[in-house]
Amino acid sequence: MDMQTRTTINGLDKQQMMDTIAAIQGQPALAQFRFRARNRWVSGGENRSSIRDFYGAGAEDSSRTEAFEFTNGEPPVLLGHNEGANPVEYLLHALAGCVTTTLVLHAAARGIEIRELSTELEGDIDLHGLLGLDEGVVPGYREIRIGLHVKADCPDEELDALIEYAKAHSPVCNTVCRPVPVALRRV
Amino acid sequence: MDMQTRTTINGLDKQQMMDTIAAIQGQPALAQFRFRARNRWVSGGENRSSIRDFYGAGAEDSSRTEAFEFTNGEPPVLLGHNEGANPVEYLLHALAGCVTTTLVLHAAARGIEIRELSTELEGDIDLHGLLGLDEGVVPGYREIRIGLHVKADCPDEELDALIEYAKAHSPVCNTVCRPVPVALRRV
Repeated sequence: MDMQTRTTINGLDKQQMMDTIAAIQGQPALAQFRFRARNRWVSGGENRSSIRDFYGAGAEDSSRTEAFEFTNGEPPVLLGHNEGANPVEYLLHALAGCVTTTLVLHAAARGIEIRELSTELEGDIDLHGLLGLDEGVVPGYREIRIGLHVKADCPDEELDALIEYAKAHSPVCNTVCRPVPVALRRV
Repeated sequence: MDMQTRTTINGLDKQQMMDTIAAIQGQPALAQFRFRARNRWVSGGENRSSIRDFYGAGAEDSSRTEAFEFTNGEPPVLLGHNEGANPVEYLLHALAGCVTTTLVLHAAARGIEIRELSTELEGDIDLHGLLGLDEGVVPGYREIRIGLHVKADCPDEELDALIEYAKAHSPVCNTVCRPVPVALRRV
């Protein structure tokens, strides 16, 4: 047995996982996180976000030497020039990533080794909502469907229980499937 | 008056905007869009999405010559190596971009010229939810706050009405502040 096999599972450090859980159980305030983004409009449907700092585990994080930068854009059919993916597509990326990471994390906690994991997402939007052409049409996604391909070293029923648990505990999935207040104010 | 001033507002083509509205009013099915993302797990908290095709305006889009690729990661305090922004941060980017684009679009429709627009977002997450340490704690954002700096050629009361309208019609904002079903199945 090599060192890698003994100390990590699914690419996660077992000892660090256990230490994190123990630290939060001993001091619940360590579990409070505040994430942030700054965005600047460029023109039309193009705008850019900068993401770097956040608060968590009792301190401001200083691990990132530079900011992550992302560009929102729109395709020509939505009046843009494909400057970037559009915001509703970025939301699918966020949801895919969160369900994946939550699943991998709880698989590790259960001692289940994940061999492969990929997802395909799709969601429907009726532009009558965004455009204000029909106030009876909800502007957001009507529903989002995720197809999940996964290979793991456990029986199918354990895998299905794990998937259900990941869905119920994923932060982005719970921000989408539950109503989360958005406070918007001019500053 | 130069040609640019006459044919665009806020970087959007006025004629294309009016044509889009007229087309949807004449043929409501053109407003149905289906967006997609594909994601693949790499290791631990790292996974990557590919976004390219979507259905909208009555056809599969073919305007993108290559896919947009994004990497989710986690900071060390969340067991990662800063391989990318994390999923809950990407969600803030999506929300910032959608509120911005919705505001710019409806400003244009009202003939309001936006000179500057930037946003700062923050949201709180209690890791007891994600980790399953307290089933009474919601895993998602508790609330998301957006501070919006905007300069426009209209009175403040018109600006406040525009901001309220943008919030009510933004697809990502409405996916966050309303409950949207997420269907997850193994394929």
